[in-house]
Amino acid sequence: MSTIRFTDLALHLPATVPFVGPEANMRATGRPFRARLGANESGFGPSPKAISAMQSAASEAWMYGDSECHDLRMALATHHQIAPENILVGEGIDGILGNLVRLMVAPGDAVVTSDGAYPTFNYHVAGFGGALHKVPYRDDHEDPAALLVRAEEVGAKLLYFCNPDNPMGSWHSARIVQRMIDAVPEGTLLVLDEAYIDAAPEGTAPALNTENAQVIRLRTFSKLYGLAGLRIGYAIGAAPLIAMFDRIRNHFGVGRIAQAGALAALHDQTWLARVQAELTAARKMLAEIAADNGLHALPSATNFVTMDCGRDGDFARKLVQALMARDVFVRMPFVAPHDRCIRVSAGPPADMAVFAEVLPQALRDI
Amino acid sequence: MSTIRFTDLALHLPATVPFVGPEANMRATGRPFRARLGANESGFGPSPKAISAMQSAASEAWMYGDSECHDLRMALATHHQIAPENILVGEGIDGILGNLVRLMVAPGDAVVTSDGAYPTFNYHVAGFGGALHKVPYRDDHEDPAALLVRAEEVGAKLLYFCNPDNPMGSWHSARIVQRMIDAVPEGTLLVLDEAYIDAAPEGTAPALNTENAQVIRLRTFSKLYGLAGLRIGYAIGAAPLIAMFDRIRNHFGVGRIAQAGALAALHDQTWLARVQAELTAARKMLAEIAADNGLHALPSATNFVTMDCGRDGDFARKLVQALMARDVFVRMPFVAPHDRCIRVSAGPPADMAVFAEVLPQALRDI
Repeated sequence: MSTIRFTDLALHLPATVPFVGPEANMRATGRPFRARLGANESGFGPSPKAISAMQSAASEAWMYGDSECHDLRMALATHHQIAPENILVGEGIDGILGNLVRLMVAPGDAVVTSDGAYPTFNYHVAGFGGALHKVPYRDDHEDPAALLVRAEEVGAKLLYFCNPDNPMGSWHSARIVQRMIDAVPEGTLLVLDEAYIDAAPEGTAPALNTENAQVIRLRTFSKLYGLAGLRIGYAIGAAPLIAMFDRIRNHFGVGRIAQAGALAALHDQTWLARVQAELTAARKMLAEIAADNGLHALPSATNFVTMDCGRDGDFARKLVQALMARDVFVRMPFVAPHDRCIRVSAGPPADMAVFAEVLPQALRDI
Repeated sequence: MSTIRFTDLALHLPATVPFVGPEANMRATGRPFRARLGANESGFGPSPKAISAMQSAASEAWMYGDSECHDLRMALATHHQIAPENILVGEGIDGILGNLVRLMVAPGDAVVTSDGAYPTFNYHVAGFGGALHKVPYRDDHEDPAALLVRAEEVGAKLLYFCNPDNPMGSWHSARIVQRMIDAVPEGTLLVLDEAYIDAAPEGTAPALNTENAQVIRLRTFSKLYGLAGLRIGYAIGAAPLIAMFDRIRNHFGVGRIAQAGALAALHDQTWLARVQAELTAARKMLAEIAADNGLHALPSATNFVTMDCGRDGDFARKLVQALMARDVFVRMPFVAPHDRCIRVSAGPPADMAVFAEVLPQALRDI
């Protein structure tokens, strides 16, 4: 490496990753998971129609995907009753966040988020040299008022807000979020990550308003649509903002099978409704399992349930390790005081039964 | 857009894209292509085993892909007889190039390429504010000696070299490329794009040497493996260089179906050999069709044939348009003097027959 020259920025980045992948965990033990409940994937699976569409598209995989994601964008436009010019399809929310940060954040630029919120966003901000300012949660909720104040104070270019929230599962009503949107400071773009919106009660998402140039909203096929392995999500925003992505995105970056799968999944709203019903039942099961074991399930508007262990971070970390040692994959929030909790993805009854079986064993282990 | 703030760099980027996608071309005419021969995709298709692997993986698409691409990296390591630490799997060569430029090029940094070489590389360099220096081709070949001289002169951080070359289809022998590797100036990384290497004769790729920190080699599943729609490629380089990508890449960016398809494709070398044989026949057919119509096919070590029309760029552009008007998708080199040519992907006999039928009609049209 002596003679090649990285940027100063790259040289000063840490060699860490936001998440250890579940496959890496399995390789560490040499055993498969009995239940895969740590990455908020949808164990209910994607629509059978999406599976069928992906299988049909497999033999067409010799062709690049449509660089404009035209059919999917048109279908999303119809679905949301907005114009296709207001929609960007990208390589999952992770990919879109990376490009958004790249478009807006130069070294030293201020960005505001909540302390303990999505680490991959922070990873992108650090990766472009941005200065992250973190606002504490308030009662396990992101704190819109405090976030707005901080954004104004530091002159934030981006203000990240996830609703419903990961990792706590909490949420704010559309009314509160709309008030936040209306109060975004001059010069700030609100990044409203709605990855889990399909799991939230009616009245959580404010109406879409694509005239507002100060909000970008992020949606995904990775969560309730059950297509995390495809890498496809989308952003909704004002047309001039959406158009900016064309200057830097990988135009052929969204694959052909991914586009076909997402399109079929979007068209099968019946399946989505079924997953939502199964999810509601699974969250109830998880809350009961938690209570049976002396833990307290926090209310959730997501596809996971965050469980307060009533002790400190060390205890919760040991519990996660004990569950993993028994081949149940879960994760936990990274920072105090949230790290008193573990985070368990909702899944089909068989997975919930495994969790019910193993949780008391893991608690006894520690 | 009044109140949100893009970086100066983003604001000064052009709103252009390296390539108009074939689907966009079809939407413009409202008709499907009779032959899709413009994007150097493999009309021979992927291995049936890869199709089968992708179809099986479709029902597992609810899970994120392995963030370490472990199985594929191990298989590639075995295939190339190198260590997995020397292999980076990424979202196609396009995605890897973007991350490589991001790691190394700050605004104003010098980068050298050939005038008329891969525009997506130039797009990434411009996207990070690099200063591109272009060296002319010499007799339709990239010019290693001149590239080296220019890299030294301007203090290039990156020197891009594609072998075999796109868009001319020409190539240099392993001996010449090795001499180039040995002469890379201090402070420069040679980016050796070998997307088409599987289409080249024996003796085109120099031996891999992962001790050399001044070369990164790029390979893909998009071309002869027939998996352009999956978005998966890889880089081979010194371990410390490969490790740097972990600081900025989207760790879950390579999808689950993509990894499964690529792994199965790699394991089916019999299919690859069959495609190589079909390709050789198709290139021969294209050369004959060219000759029958007064064009001259340049020698090709790629999966396309570049045909000299013997006239100027305007003539070739008209020919491309005439072919497109008759629903035959081809492209052509962007810059003079290469733009005297059209570029036609090799494909199965039925596609070659369509080209043979339509080329004389298109020539009569103009």
